[in-house]
Amino acid sequence: MPYRAPVSEFQFLFDHVVGFGQVQATERFAHATGDVTQAILTEAGRMCQDVLAPLQRNGDLSPARLENGVVRTSPGFDEGYRAISEGGWIGMSASEEAGGMALPQSLTSAVNEMMAGACLSLQLNPLMSQGQIEALEHHASEEIRRIYLPKLISGEWCGTMNLTEPQAGSDVGALRTRAEDNGDGSFAITGQKIFISWGDNDFTGNVCHLVLARLPDAPEGTRGISLFMVPKRIPDQDGNAGMANSLKVVSLEHKLGLHGSPTAVMQYDGATGWMVGPPNGGMKAMFTMMNNARLGVGVQGIGAGEGAYQTAVAYANERRQGKTGGADGTIIEHADVRRMLMEMRARLFAARAIAAMNGVAIDMATATGDPAWAARAALLTPMSKAYGTDTGIEVAQAGIQVHGGMGYIEETGAAQYLRDARVTAIYEGTNGIQALDLVGRKMMDGGEAARALLDELAGQSRDDRVLAAIGDMRQATDWLIEADQADRQAGATVYLRAFSNVIGAACHERAAAAEDGAEGPRKSLAAFFIARMLPENAGLLSALRAGSGTLYGIAPSEMIAG
Amino acid sequence: MPYRAPVSEFQFLFDHVVGFGQVQATERFAHATGDVTQAILTEAGRMCQDVLAPLQRNGDLSPARLENGVVRTSPGFDEGYRAISEGGWIGMSASEEAGGMALPQSLTSAVNEMMAGACLSLQLNPLMSQGQIEALEHHASEEIRRIYLPKLISGEWCGTMNLTEPQAGSDVGALRTRAEDNGDGSFAITGQKIFISWGDNDFTGNVCHLVLARLPDAPEGTRGISLFMVPKRIPDQDGNAGMANSLKVVSLEHKLGLHGSPTAVMQYDGATGWMVGPPNGGMKAMFTMMNNARLGVGVQGIGAGEGAYQTAVAYANERRQGKTGGADGTIIEHADVRRMLMEMRARLFAARAIAAMNGVAIDMATATGDPAWAARAALLTPMSKAYGTDTGIEVAQAGIQVHGGMGYIEETGAAQYLRDARVTAIYEGTNGIQALDLVGRKMMDGGEAARALLDELAGQSRDDRVLAAIGDMRQATDWLIEADQADRQAGATVYLRAFSNVIGAACHERAAAAEDGAEGPRKSLAAFFIARMLPENAGLLSALRAGSGTLYGIAPSEMIAG
Repeated sequence: MPYRAPVSEFQFLFDHVVGFGQVQATERFAHATGDVTQAILTEAGRMCQDVLAPLQRNGDLSPARLENGVVRTSPGFDEGYRAISEGGWIGMSASEEAGGMALPQSLTSAVNEMMAGACLSLQLNPLMSQGQIEALEHHASEEIRRIYLPKLISGEWCGTMNLTEPQAGSDVGALRTRAEDNGDGSFAITGQKIFISWGDNDFTGNVCHLVLARLPDAPEGTRGISLFMVPKRIPDQDGNAGMANSLKVVSLEHKLGLHGSPTAVMQYDGATGWMVGPPNGGMKAMFTMMNNARLGVGVQGIGAGEGAYQTAVAYANERRQGKTGGADGTIIEHADVRRMLMEMRARLFAARAIAAMNGVAIDMATATGDPAWAARAALLTPMSKAYGTDTGIEVAQAGIQVHGGMGYIEETGAAQYLRDARVTAIYEGTNGIQALDLVGRKMMDGGEAARALLDELAGQSRDDRVLAAIGDMRQATDWLIEADQADRQAGATVYLRAFSNVIGAACHERAAAAEDGAEGPRKSLAAFFIARMLPENAGLLSALRAGSGTLYGIAPSEMIAG
Repeated sequence: MPYRAPVSEFQFLFDHVVGFGQVQATERFAHATGDVTQAILTEAGRMCQDVLAPLQRNGDLSPARLENGVVRTSPGFDEGYRAISEGGWIGMSASEEAGGMALPQSLTSAVNEMMAGACLSLQLNPLMSQGQIEALEHHASEEIRRIYLPKLISGEWCGTMNLTEPQAGSDVGALRTRAEDNGDGSFAITGQKIFISWGDNDFTGNVCHLVLARLPDAPEGTRGISLFMVPKRIPDQDGNAGMANSLKVVSLEHKLGLHGSPTAVMQYDGATGWMVGPPNGGMKAMFTMMNNARLGVGVQGIGAGEGAYQTAVAYANERRQGKTGGADGTIIEHADVRRMLMEMRARLFAARAIAAMNGVAIDMATATGDPAWAARAALLTPMSKAYGTDTGIEVAQAGIQVHGGMGYIEETGAAQYLRDARVTAIYEGTNGIQALDLVGRKMMDGGEAARALLDELAGQSRDDRVLAAIGDMRQATDWLIEADQADRQAGATVYLRAFSNVIGAACHERAAAAEDGAEGPRKSLAAFFIARMLPENAGLLSALRAGSGTLYGIAPSEMIAG
């Protein structure tokens, strides 16, 4: 697919919508100057366009496959990976002492979105490494950090997350993989893990698995889970990949999409691992990794959506049908086609603004240690993830529709965006789990972080419709805080979407205000979103207030009418 | 996939929601007694469960393929087709003199939905024949009817529709296929047609192509289009399939789904055809076929949705995760999973009720000749098609989500429903075209048919929220009638969805009222739909009233931000 990296869009968001200047004003990120930011976005965007985008179809047409126990990746993925690692894009936000660039997460997220838009299945590999790098930086011993971080940051090795087991998906506490102390500082890991993204490859010197497992006599549930580094090849005393560990890829999944990314069933047979973090404290380290990954998956959805949107615009600008269109009869002039394209772009802007706002909050929390920024980041993470990935799927759906019959033909590429993006609403915690996280854990402050954000949005708005929507959201938040658990959970998904729409509308308004001149694309887009998309909230908030009362009236055994 | 035919659901809809009794009370359909209706639904349902449902995966895993110019269909499809044809399900509504059963379209639609739910890709074949049978009954010469109808009705032969050409999709008037008079009553047809569903097969004795083409010197656009019967094998004087015609399948498309249905590029090289209907009058006959097919495609969406829903309920009843669930911890007790399942079922009910109401209107128009019934049928057709297929896709999407990670694995079958159903929003007129039809052609009566339906719904409602929604829809209809073309078209899709939601809500209310006892699944489902899904209309109608003002602010060349 041709892909045009939205470099100027990120630049505009940073400068005018999400206050990236605050990040640049901190001591910690002072080196991320305007020039550096622009150079990084431009350079990464160029790589995405020139090197990664041409690989997108390869991954789909020639899926990663398992040959005699060895994973063979899609054609060109090795060169693509090399371009990513040599560009320094994996360790952008990692510490400089281990070879990273210590750049803001905001910037890493922007680059991640562009890489995902160009080739989602390959980009998932460095995304997993980024999460692992952050987990090791915060929780691993000096020894592990010394051995693994430089290799992960350079891309010489890559990382994976091993949480899921057949009986333990969203309920990670149900996992059974065992870890037994070898008495020499290492542990023997035994068990099976499923859905391991990029469980193996043929282009890195090692694959570093972070595996959740149970020590003997560990407490039940999530309080009895420990985290282990279990490398494919055990590092020798010089830190180089040495002999093979007792682990293997049993099989690869046959998936709806993302064929370029090998999704493995992994078998550990007394594999040697080293503990990361304290005994029974694995979930905390894993959450570090998952929170990073959740924002990362959110921008995957946005990236795939951007690719789908661009493909649809290109087709609509080229395809001629009927006489009601413009002078040259292209379908982009047809009202319903234009409606779809405007919805796609307006939704993408909203989702991207939320993710960028999330990045800024993470960076400010890192730079200042201010718990209010940390709370802001925590609040935004489930929205970035769920709204970003729902956006990607909705935009990809609309992209198929814009293509008409051609959208159903695989060669067009429109369908691949849907197939690839579809998993982003599922992995790293389904979007339902994200919504429960928002109305549960993220509201344990009594709604303080939510209200602070809404107040801030209100303070900058001059549009009555946006202000009214913010007011409705405040009331909905009050309702939610007072509601019992059943009502909260019944309304979780609609609350998340409504909140995201409000942030999106406020960001659209800011963008419109910052645009030069009395008319312009950003003003048009904001007007469209506020007039045509924000009103969705009326229905969402009605559904919220319906609570759980209407949810459980039908017995499970009667759910199929027959 | 296991599939449970919703026989009792149809029975209930007929008896208590859409007034099928009116149809049975006509002389024309007096033979469709309660016993006959029940026997037909039961018998068809059994075939769908036992014979067709096991073929669903076959079509996906072993797509139809082209071998040396011959289409080889998926394993078991020949037996499946035989069961359909021998059951008499193709010609259910065709005239008895040609071998049909002259049963109401309502009943045919119900059987079509069940066949589609069991195996969509195979069911598309008889659906095409049904449309062709209706077109021939209304427009073909006695000679053509004599030769073709009995064979199409028995299923010995099958039919296709040939409209689309590379440059002529939604704009069918742009087609270029030529027809030249052979001087012996036949014509020589030359041209290429694309996206021909079931363009060929290896289980019928003939394939009867209805082809749109232009006579020499025909006027431009749709007024210069004629319709021709172009059989794969030319019937001999006894009406048996004889020598091969000059036509061939050039290639089959590689599609997102519906792999069991061969989608052909057809080449006609002076193929022999016979005109159906008058010269330059082909569009009228084609519209007969398309209107039938549009309701047919609508119920395809509902059928696929029903299959996806059942698969999701089965999984949710079996999968255990976490402790917040019921006594046995199945995920069907989790609030957000239950929300998805309730939305799926409630939306399916609404869509099915609209399609059934459409069937009744068609039957009453046929039986009584009353133009008010014909107008009702015409009004409902684009809603049946667009809302039915959107429902199928939304339900299939949610079905994947209910499965979590397993939903992304093809073996589960959840993803196939989405891939298969996706095309239903595109073919037989995209859903955007349906919406334009609703706000354009179907409102040329000044909104009379729309208001008559809304009045009727209001007269039967006792729920303030439903009555308010009907009132809003009346006002929206008034607004639409007054609006200029640009505003109408800009609001077409949201108007169609809002109107469908209102009909759905009124039908839910009727179903709840008809249910025995103070509590029951239908009351729960109606309460859920009215409290949580109908409020969507507030946002839809706001978007409607925004008109076209916000739609065209960005120049086509600026649609990609860069």
